[in-house]
Amino acid sequence: MRIGVDYYPEQWDETMWEQDADRMKEIGVEIVRVGEFAWSRMEPTEGVYDFAWLDRVVQIFTDREIDLVLCTPTCTPPQWAFEKYPEIIQVGADGAKIPIGIRGHRCVTNATYRRLCEKIIQALVERYHDNPRIIAYQIDNEVEANHCRCEECTQGFRAWMQKKYGTPQAVNAAYRNTVWSGEYSSWEEVKPPTAGVLQWQNPSLTLDYNRYASDSIVDYIEFQRQCIRKWDATVPITTNNWFCENMPDFYDLFEHLDFVSYDNYPLSVLPEDEESLYSHAFHLDLMRGIKQQNFWIMEQLSGAMGSWMPMSPTPRPGMIRGYAAQAFAHGADTVLHFRWRTACSGAEMYWHGILDHNNVPGRRYREFAELCSWAKKWKEAEGAVIQNEVAILYGSAQEYAFKLQHQAEGMYYLEQLKLFHDAFTSIGVGVDIINETASLEQYRIVIAPTLLITNEEVKDHLYHFAEDGGSVVLTNRCGVKDSYNCCIMQALPTVYEELAGVRVEEYDAIGSHEHDLQLCDSAWKQVHGEQSAKAMQWCDILAPTTAKTMAVYGPKGFSLFYGGRAAVTCNEYGEGRAYYVGTVMNRSAYHSLAQTIVEETGVSYRNDLPPGVEVTVRKKGQKSWTFVFNNTMHSQKIWTGDVLQPFEMQVYPEK
Amino acid sequence: MRIGVDYYPEQWDETMWEQDADRMKEIGVEIVRVGEFAWSRMEPTEGVYDFAWLDRVVQIFTDREIDLVLCTPTCTPPQWAFEKYPEIIQVGADGAKIPIGIRGHRCVTNATYRRLCEKIIQALVERYHDNPRIIAYQIDNEVEANHCRCEECTQGFRAWMQKKYGTPQAVNAAYRNTVWSGEYSSWEEVKPPTAGVLQWQNPSLTLDYNRYASDSIVDYIEFQRQCIRKWDATVPITTNNWFCENMPDFYDLFEHLDFVSYDNYPLSVLPEDEESLYSHAFHLDLMRGIKQQNFWIMEQLSGAMGSWMPMSPTPRPGMIRGYAAQAFAHGADTVLHFRWRTACSGAEMYWHGILDHNNVPGRRYREFAELCSWAKKWKEAEGAVIQNEVAILYGSAQEYAFKLQHQAEGMYYLEQLKLFHDAFTSIGVGVDIINETASLEQYRIVIAPTLLITNEEVKDHLYHFAEDGGSVVLTNRCGVKDSYNCCIMQALPTVYEELAGVRVEEYDAIGSHEHDLQLCDSAWKQVHGEQSAKAMQWCDILAPTTAKTMAVYGPKGFSLFYGGRAAVTCNEYGEGRAYYVGTVMNRSAYHSLAQTIVEETGVSYRNDLPPGVEVTVRKKGQKSWTFVFNNTMHSQKIWTGDVLQPFEMQVYPEK
Amino acid sequence: MRIGVDYYPEQWDETMWEQDADRMKEIGVEIVRVGEFAWSRMEPTEGVYDFAWLDRVVQIFTDREIDLVLCTPTCTPPQWAFEKYPEIIQVGADGAKIPIGIRGHRCVTNATYRRLCEKIIQALVERYHDNPRIIAYQIDNEVEANHCRCEECTQGFRAWMQKKYGTPQAVNAAYRNTVWSGEYSSWEEVKPPTAGVLQWQNPSLTLDYNRYASDSIVDYIEFQRQCIRKWDATVPITTNNWFCENMPDFYDLFEHLDFVSYDNYPLSVLPEDEESLYSHAFHLDLMRGIKQQNFWIMEQLSGAMGSWMPMSPTPRPGMIRGYAAQAFAHGADTVLHFRWRTACSGAEMYWHGILDHNNVPGRRYREFAELCSWAKKWKEAEGAVIQNEVAILYGSAQEYAFKLQHQAEGMYYLEQLKLFHDAFTSIGVGVDIINETASLEQYRIVIAPTLLITNEEVKDHLYHFAEDGGSVVLTNRCGVKDSYNCCIMQALPTVYEELAGVRVEEYDAIGSHEHDLQLCDSAWKQVHGEQSAKAMQWCDILAPTTAKTMAVYGPKGFSLFYGGRAAVTCNEYGEGRAYYVGTVMNRSAYHSLAQTIVEETGVSYRNDLPPGVEVTVRKKGQKSWTFVFNNTMHSQKIWTGDVLQPFEMQVYPEK
Repeated sequence: MRIGVDYYPEQWDETMWEQDADRMKEIGVEIVRVGEFAWSRMEPTEGVYDFAWLDRVVQIFTDREIDLVLCTPTCTPPQWAFEKYPEIIQVGADGAKIPIGIRGHRCVTNATYRRLCEKIIQALVERYHDNPRIIAYQIDNEVEANHCRCEECTQGFRAWMQKKYGTPQAVNAAYRNTVWSGEYSSWEEVKPPTAGVLQWQNPSLTLDYNRYASDSIVDYIEFQRQCIRKWDATVPITTNNWFCENMPDFYDLFEHLDFVSYDNYPLSVLPEDEESLYSHAFHLDLMRGIKQQNFWIMEQLSGAMGSWMPMSPTPRPGMIRGYAAQAFAHGADTVLHFRWRTACSGAEMYWHGILDHNNVPGRRYREFAELCSWAKKWKEAEGAVIQNEVAILYGSAQEYAFKLQHQAEGMYYLEQLKLFHDAFTSIGVGVDIINETASLEQYRIVIAPTLLITNEEVKDHLYHFAEDGGSVVLTNRCGVKDSYNCCIMQALPTVYEELAGVRVEEYDAIGSHEHDLQLCDSAWKQVHGEQSAKAMQWCDILAPTTAKTMAVYGPKGFSLFYGGRAAVTCNEYGEGRAYYVGTVMNRSAYHSLAQTIVEETGVSYRNDLPPGVEVTVRKKGQKSWTFVFNNTMHSQKIWTGDVLQPFEMQVYPEK
Repeated sequence: MRIGVDYYPEQWDETMWEQDADRMKEIGVEIVRVGEFAWSRMEPTEGVYDFAWLDRVVQIFTDREIDLVLCTPTCTPPQWAFEKYPEIIQVGADGAKIPIGIRGHRCVTNATYRRLCEKIIQALVERYHDNPRIIAYQIDNEVEANHCRCEECTQGFRAWMQKKYGTPQAVNAAYRNTVWSGEYSSWEEVKPPTAGVLQWQNPSLTLDYNRYASDSIVDYIEFQRQCIRKWDATVPITTNNWFCENMPDFYDLFEHLDFVSYDNYPLSVLPEDEESLYSHAFHLDLMRGIKQQNFWIMEQLSGAMGSWMPMSPTPRPGMIRGYAAQAFAHGADTVLHFRWRTACSGAEMYWHGILDHNNVPGRRYREFAELCSWAKKWKEAEGAVIQNEVAILYGSAQEYAFKLQHQAEGMYYLEQLKLFHDAFTSIGVGVDIINETASLEQYRIVIAPTLLITNEEVKDHLYHFAEDGGSVVLTNRCGVKDSYNCCIMQALPTVYEELAGVRVEEYDAIGSHEHDLQLCDSAWKQVHGEQSAKAMQWCDILAPTTAKTMAVYGPKGFSLFYGGRAAVTCNEYGEGRAYYVGTVMNRSAYHSLAQTIVEETGVSYRNDLPPGVEVTVRKKGQKSWTFVFNNTMHSQKIWTGDVLQPFEMQVYPEK
Repeated sequence: MRIGVDYYPEQWDETMWEQDADRMKEIGVEIVRVGEFAWSRMEPTEGVYDFAWLDRVVQIFTDREIDLVLCTPTCTPPQWAFEKYPEIIQVGADGAKIPIGIRGHRCVTNATYRRLCEKIIQALVERYHDNPRIIAYQIDNEVEANHCRCEECTQGFRAWMQKKYGTPQAVNAAYRNTVWSGEYSSWEEVKPPTAGVLQWQNPSLTLDYNRYASDSIVDYIEFQRQCIRKWDATVPITTNNWFCENMPDFYDLFEHLDFVSYDNYPLSVLPEDEESLYSHAFHLDLMRGIKQQNFWIMEQLSGAMGSWMPMSPTPRPGMIRGYAAQAFAHGADTVLHFRWRTACSGAEMYWHGILDHNNVPGRRYREFAELCSWAKKWKEAEGAVIQNEVAILYGSAQEYAFKLQHQAEGMYYLEQLKLFHDAFTSIGVGVDIINETASLEQYRIVIAPTLLITNEEVKDHLYHFAEDGGSVVLTNRCGVKDSYNCCIMQALPTVYEELAGVRVEEYDAIGSHEHDLQLCDSAWKQVHGEQSAKAMQWCDILAPTTAKTMAVYGPKGFSLFYGGRAAVTCNEYGEGRAYYVGTVMNRSAYHSLAQTIVEETGVSYRNDLPPGVEVTVRKKGQKSWTFVFNNTMHSQKIWTGDVLQPFEMQVYPEK
């Protein structure tokens, strides 16, 4: 495992650089990311470059045999660029340029902006590409789907629509635009959806606009990638991914990039309520699944977060070491901590780094140094891969469609995935989270939660997967819509009815209400035992056709009128089977269901894991490493007899 | 009772039309509303009309002897209209055109828009008016007071002000504009109040602006009515009313229309807390009171509501049948359900109809079919009228003035009316809710809650009504202001002091605090018994002049300093009496007070109704029908011995 | 003590003026404030003046020997001014003119506006300055820091920056603008921070912009002062101060004004929760501290507040008399009540005066009359001064910096000061709240809470103060930043480390979490006894160098990992000592700490005060008056044996 830091030399007096580098070397930092945000220092006025300072920085690290990640600084155009070319500023949903601060928001489709980007990238890459210590490039920073409404983007969106649909009439047909007289009679009428309540807009339009916005940022990243490749043919290129308001399609975003990197900020305070979902492992598995290969952490939690919000509590002892190790366990061979030292100025000054403002090594620094030592012990495991038999499908369109049209109060797309991820994790079964269109060949169990938007390819994969002996898990809200975000006029789960062997007779969006759930006499009931089971948020009332019923709505709770009706079913299909979970359950019901499914499928699992203890296995040739992580505030004893302190990672190598 | 549906043929493949019509015929649907929102299909580009599809639709229903309501489609101008004539877009309080979605918001005063309306209405009515199956026209859809700030509306408002006041000086005098140097020196300075916190604006101006906005929409509806009447002299015309943010004056709105229709969406989950007010009956009585005649439901709850908010729970069993029957019991002879089938596209796709997206008849469809059958049993009762002896006064200006200046935390105008409505309903006494200026001749008890804005006509009615032997109920906040929304400089209740026989010495807006209330030794106390009585939200400290005290503030609670002072009084006046309720009470205190009042007035009532059971009587010639409705989630036994299931309606005909 | 009222003759029919004045005379009102907001009556159209009405008003009061405060009416320009000169309207953070209502918001830097101001001030002062009854001028009304973004202010801000820094490069150096490429390359790029989330902007910029905005309003007040002084060389001038969203620097604001006046609106309902801080005394002490001399109340609570919010409960009996007396006890020799009679029109009609809308003297009027009588008893105490030995430092930059960057959830700057003020008040020790840069010579104990922004002068004062034998109290978050709002790269408390004798090893922003606190075996522990002590919001983990530990974090609560570490310390320094409070404590811990500090410093105090009873001492020559005020809803017995009713003030004169 390789440990690095994010470093902003331009923010510090140059007399500090060598001390910083020496300290890094001393504790075992192997990689430093530089250049992000430093555009104004590289190009103080248009066309005038100053790289002398960066030359010195690169030299300092090169001298110490510390590797470098070089960033394109395009996320923060200099003030002169905004002043000279105001057209590069992003236009918000209200049609006005968004307020720029120091971290200005720019329209990534704007031609002028792209020209400025190309020039600074050329200058940068041309200068440093032949330094062998440069081991990767990072493009820009934490990009989002480009929800810009500038004139250029309006035209861009229109062109995107023209390419997809050909004629306004074809749009009308796809969107079924007769509703509310929404038919377009000419291309001029086709525009990005404007502000106000976005839910009042046509969901076909908003979903397509988000697809455009995602394509737009993907195009921008590809543009930068090509700029870099003009001058450097080999060094790997990435961008640092994150979770944001307007998420692009991750799979598209990284399609042409060499690896995925992710900004990982676990909570410093875990929720105490057992039913509150948090899962750092989930996000790591989602990131690994983007390219289905190992990935990097480009920014890792190092201290209290804050700045535009009040400061959070500081990371508890063990978190800095433990969360980096957890990322490693999930496939991140390289973890860079954000940031070496806390900024002393600017809006982000309370987003704490390894070192505090005072530059005095403290508790977190010592823990980080221990991490660096620990990391060196597991060099051999670098490149080892994770091979799971269970996958959860994630779809970018699903997430956006769900967000724009809440199905029931309190019901969120990612939470539905996390419930399953949590359940399999709790029994030590590794899970991949993959693009819904990905190949399912390597898996034995595939969870496909809330496939709201139907995709023919996904459907075919799932049918074939079950035919060939796999276990599929479908849920409520699957098969609801076609790819244009229009409802399919067919009994739910529409195209999935044959696979699931059930028909949804009616549904009830109970939101914050609850109903009890009765497990039928089955393996599941055995596993679940005396714990309570609940139906929440959403209730499909199921009529099994070929499926057998696994759980029914009980006689108590919110909705007496469908007491006794099927809520969860299982259908034998081909060589495999399809489970259908028609409601949202409490966590323990998911746990026992997961155990039932792995037992029925014949996937191995553990039933001796204390709550919050996570197991991951990485393999390389004949070797394997079992990682056991205690992601709780309490010490816990595991099957080996070892007692894991809070946030402690234990690794058990095997051959 | 006649049952219909709202149908959008333009949203469905034409191959489905006949099946839909056949099904409707089969289960007994008698009326179909069409045309709403279909402008783009009637006039695909400006001046080019396409009615072939609608001809066929009309023919299909005509063939099956199903009646039609034809709508003007003006609520949703086609996209070409917005593109070609952007001036028709409404301007928001911030001075910018509001974002148009598919359901665009248009300025109803705009001349271009009116010209477009006139042409499509002419084309529509000219074509279909001689089909005898067309039994009504609906103008537009769910209109609101026209709070538009476009240049045309700014001038329109100024002209409205000029007409009302003559000179800026007269405005200054009426508004007492010296406050904060608000005096106008010329008409140019007179403009609609702009955005930000509307409460910072002069309340005289905001109230007048709302009156203008109401007049503006009334004028628009009248404009459409006249357009229709040019081509069809006889078929009744309405518009579908609703409750919205900016309510127009309902009485003005329907003055020239032939009947009232209302969009009725009862809650699918009733609040469990006894003190939470909900009342579907209240809204129905308010609608019936607009023209003091029977009315229609133009849209009736058929399924879960949702789309821009998360979906609600689906209507519980019995609701679809029961709530339509409840509307009938309150004077709606015709009830059209929204909508035949749930939309499969567009922003409203989760506002569910009788049929789900799947087009498969389900539980709600079956219940609706039962309703159709049930409705046919009570044909004879159509046209039967409701004759109540109790009226509650509603005033459009009251509601707006209350909304713009909250009197106390948690105190809302409509809630004050509902508290009384609930109380009389709970003892089986029917209530009319009527315009505050309406004649009171037919009543024996008139409730006039919070007459904040004084109207001379209302005042005279109430004095005469009491003189002639009626019982008047006045409350806190009556007589506060003149018609310009300025306070009257006189001891409260100012012009009502003589009638009430009390003077308000002081008031205390206690908001969320509470105080106990002690009933004096009186009939009321007898009725109320051991239940607790509370004063909440607002406390007038009363000094009776000629009135006798019925209740005083007790020794416990928030405001010791007026313990023992009068809170509720009764004054003999002329042949009648005037009650004055100086505070807001808990529900049971209203219930017992209502009983006391009907006993003292000699109006018959029931004291054997279980909570939530409502009784309504309709009469026609010598015949009468007593409707008993169980508006709760539990079964309840009534005086007849019958047990009513949740939402069950029983009708007891008499001769 | 002198009692007055705020009166708006222009709002009332002139036939009422004499009755009003007679009533005032009768009950003992000595001063009347007039003219505020009356611009449109003084200058109905530009350049045309009408003072006849005001002449009569002035004459009426002059005849009755009632003094007058004359206001410049500039807060509310007439409608003609906004219409004719729209450039005088303030521009909001979104770049658009803010919506004007009747109380329009004007840009105080605008040249046209200033010209209009100058002319009306000249007309007013020239006319009335030689009437000896005019005893003071009030400039404008409740001014705020001028957060305007109009073109003139943009240039004004730029000029302010140029004057402060000289070159853009100097700004870059001060702000350390390399972060996020924020470097300015020319002055054109320097602009006020725009809207959106202000926390995303550079905190160096936002703090400087607020300083500019404060300077801008200070400049405007000085401009008006000079206008007045042209025509009246002697009559004292003030402006009425308040607490608002964008507070100017109070000390700058009043530097050239003759006295401070304050608008004092105590809560009419006190929070019941003991831990909820409220303190009217705090605000009064803060006002007295601005010029460290006695002050006026220009507007005093007279009735329920409301208008743009729901009405509050009416002032409880005793409040009108008691809160005016409390102001007197804290140095306000003159208290004017807002307002004589409640406005009957305009947006402020529910902000109640002494008389209600009805003009009928009621309970509050009678209480006010009693106050007038009571006030006459204590004429002799006018001018008596308060000499305290304890001071709390307040800094304008601290407050703004804290507000823009919340340190921890729930932690607010003023609350930190109030906690200490409350503690000393609870033991009868008077406190001055003074500018952080003020001289400390007269004090023996100085509390300097959260000195986030470091000021060299303040630092020097505190070191010298301790050296000379004073007791200093420092807290967490002191020494964090330099004057440019950038963090100091040094171990906390940075420049205060030597004084405090502690180093902060780490901090933990625990926000809403809690931790127990253990007092060490010390005087404090003795005083505190068995009460619980808690650490909340923020925890510094302290490493004492020369200080001794007074309290440590206990073994229970949120953050086990620093259990046992020092939380509060005391350091002997020079002849004095410095306490360091590294956390935020519960109220009783502050109470006992305050007692410990005064005991250790040898300042006298009382330990016999019931909760909520406040003691103040005023002295004049050999005489002194001890004021005892019961600021609770309950009667309380004090050491004299007297029982004080709720809000009762007792005065004990001594010689």
